[in-house]
Amino acid sequence: MKEIGIGLLGLGHVGSGVVRAIERNGALIADRTGFRLIIRRIAVRDVGKVRPVKVDSALLTQDAASVIEDPNVHVVVEMIGGTTDAHALTLQALQAGKPVVTANKALLAERGDEIFAKAERRHVDLYFGPSVGGGIPIIRGLREDLIGNHIVAMYGILNGTCNYILTRMEQEHLPIETVLAEAQAAGYAEAEPSLDIDGWDTAHKAVILASTAYGFFVPMEDVDVRGIRDVALADIKEARAMGFAMKLLAVIQHLDDGISIRVQPTLVPDDNLLASVGGVFNAVLVVGDIVGEALFYGRGAGPDPTASAVLADLVDVGRNLIAGSENRVPALARHHQYGGTRCPDDIPGRCYLRLLLRDEPGVLALVAEICAAHKISIASVRQYERGSDGHATVIIVTHSALERQFNAAIAVIDGLDTIAAPVVQYRIEDFQHD
Amino acid sequence: MKEIGIGLLGLGHVGSGVVRAIERNGALIADRTGFRLIIRRIAVRDVGKVRPVKVDSALLTQDAASVIEDPNVHVVVEMIGGTTDAHALTLQALQAGKPVVTANKALLAERGDEIFAKAERRHVDLYFGPSVGGGIPIIRGLREDLIGNHIVAMYGILNGTCNYILTRMEQEHLPIETVLAEAQAAGYAEAEPSLDIDGWDTAHKAVILASTAYGFFVPMEDVDVRGIRDVALADIKEARAMGFAMKLLAVIQHLDDGISIRVQPTLVPDDNLLASVGGVFNAVLVVGDIVGEALFYGRGAGPDPTASAVLADLVDVGRNLIAGSENRVPALARHHQYGGTRCPDDIPGRCYLRLLLRDEPGVLALVAEICAAHKISIASVRQYERGSDGHATVIIVTHSALERQFNAAIAVIDGLDTIAAPVVQYRIEDFQHD
Repeated sequence: MKEIGIGLLGLGHVGSGVVRAIERNGALIADRTGFRLIIRRIAVRDVGKVRPVKVDSALLTQDAASVIEDPNVHVVVEMIGGTTDAHALTLQALQAGKPVVTANKALLAERGDEIFAKAERRHVDLYFGPSVGGGIPIIRGLREDLIGNHIVAMYGILNGTCNYILTRMEQEHLPIETVLAEAQAAGYAEAEPSLDIDGWDTAHKAVILASTAYGFFVPMEDVDVRGIRDVALADIKEARAMGFAMKLLAVIQHLDDGISIRVQPTLVPDDNLLASVGGVFNAVLVVGDIVGEALFYGRGAGPDPTASAVLADLVDVGRNLIAGSENRVPALARHHQYGGTRCPDDIPGRCYLRLLLRDEPGVLALVAEICAAHKISIASVRQYERGSDGHATVIIVTHSALERQFNAAIAVIDGLDTIAAPVVQYRIEDFQHD
Repeated sequence: MKEIGIGLLGLGHVGSGVVRAIERNGALIADRTGFRLIIRRIAVRDVGKVRPVKVDSALLTQDAASVIEDPNVHVVVEMIGGTTDAHALTLQALQAGKPVVTANKALLAERGDEIFAKAERRHVDLYFGPSVGGGIPIIRGLREDLIGNHIVAMYGILNGTCNYILTRMEQEHLPIETVLAEAQAAGYAEAEPSLDIDGWDTAHKAVILASTAYGFFVPMEDVDVRGIRDVALADIKEARAMGFAMKLLAVIQHLDDGISIRVQPTLVPDDNLLASVGGVFNAVLVVGDIVGEALFYGRGAGPDPTASAVLADLVDVGRNLIAGSENRVPALARHHQYGGTRCPDDIPGRCYLRLLLRDEPGVLALVAEICAAHKISIASVRQYERGSDGHATVIIVTHSALERQFNAAIAVIDGLDTIAAPVVQYRIEDFQHD
């Protein structure tokens, strides 16, 4: 039986998951495909370290370049993470004509343009299914299943840590500080949580999704990013009472003159399946012009779901090597069907606004006037009795208006003497598309 | 630019959808893939008939064999349906070495063994993504994305007509006769609805899913099928009040000694996403041993979602033709990792039972005794005040027991003089797996 030799770069949690998965299901995969996946070399930083998985120590080396160069290594699996060594080694492998499978979303989002170009120039396979959504087959979904569709929009819950935090806040009525601290103690969240909770990881994945769907490399700086660090329990409770779930949502939309990409805490109506995606699960709702709505849901991170996606990509690469069909599906099929990115300023949508008013006559009327002056129509208002500080909380849900109208109105309201704190604003996503 | 010539067999609703989709997005597909999909010939029963789509009449012919034989036709798209002509033409195309894309689930489920074998022997591509779940990429999902996984179980809502009927019954409190008649009048349901509502269409799709996941052809007669024809509004309402949605569910499970496949109306707890799949939408929840739970959701039927899946398969075939990688993914990768099918008699699960008791002292106690004698433990009982007929309705929810224990207990209960009607039974699916 034919063999596909794998060179593994990195043997941390995810790399170990790949080793375990091949041990567990290698025979099944061989029966299904006609070839065997064999790990030939593993590059690690410290060969003496104790690992979460047992491997033959003869496979280990501290010399990553030698793994890539090994003639018995047919495909390189990059699992070291980060954007420096991973960057150099990925380019080295592609330059050497070795296909690469990677889960490294930061690398692709920040330096993908160079990497995609290298794969293209060398006509070599670059697979990155595990980089977005772990076990969710969204990359192959876009590159293959939905290839006949113009992608109208994508809505993604792409970060399990954030979704876990928001779910627990909602279910247990806990503030973010408490849930985050517990998640960190349990190892679900990083000690330095910024990558997750400030939305950067979600933005990395949004860049990869948008680039894949629209055929040009989307720069990170074109993504409008707002994380969940400032999400107040009060707003989650209000939203719940009104039939919304608070989700950190990546929203990628094709507009008349380009692609808009934003990442922000968003109120999702309960009748949309995304509102029911709880805990560490991820989901992507894709709207295609022919297929309509299609949703992909599953575990978005962790060694096992990621390993599942690595195996799928390894099998694709193996099939290509055996059939001689390298680069059968280009990593990034560049074309000019879409203009570029654009600012989401004039995307219409409803908003949720929370205001803290000094309780004086006429304040609410003034706010309403400012909204009207900016063509924002108010759908509902709830005013709560003032607290001991003499301030009254007002929750406003608007009808649809443009992002820049909201921004302008909020700037004026925030300048009022009678406003005790900056306006808190969340978009309500109604999943409307042409 | 390279061209892939398509021979279309059939130009009904679905065939017309394919023509429209290629017209609409052909240029985009060409930019993404580097080749053009061109419809070269179309076989129809009557060239004079008015079509839902405009096509060059020079493309039309009543001689389907000539379409297959045309040297400019590189791939055959079978859209005529049925299991006689479609069977002969599919075999003819494969025999001629022409790849086939088909949406014909009845053909594959009933005569697939022969067709898969022919594709295998001729080493030619057979793609059938559109046959299950329309636009839902579940076939490619199993064949490629989840290929590294042992599939523990699959749970599918696979028939849009049934799901539409059950959803409307639940939401509008209408009996099945009313909803079915309206659906028929609106064209959502066939005049002869048996294929859908008696569960056969769902069973066809379950056969294709099981065969794809487990590497052997599953015969239709091994599927335990019960449709929705007898589902009473009363049970849907009871289920709703207890937090369950009634769904026609295909349940495919790997057990110690084989694969069990059943199709039956099932109570799905509200906390599972499948309970929220409403109307004509389809969804498949796949449990893989590595990936965990993954859910695929979308429109399961109709010309457009089906066309989306046809395009994906055409692109795969086109890529194979251009790369010379025919049969890169075998239609049915036969292997011996799984034993075969088996009867679902000793699968554990909870049940919902509705009994109509003659209101005499001791009847409920007798029923409880019979359950206990069959090792069925009762979780809850609701007894309603007797109606004018002197009968009392009792709803029993059990703890987990085996299918054959339920069958045996029900047989005894049905034999009681004090039972006014046969016991109504539904499985409750708790999505438990090892």
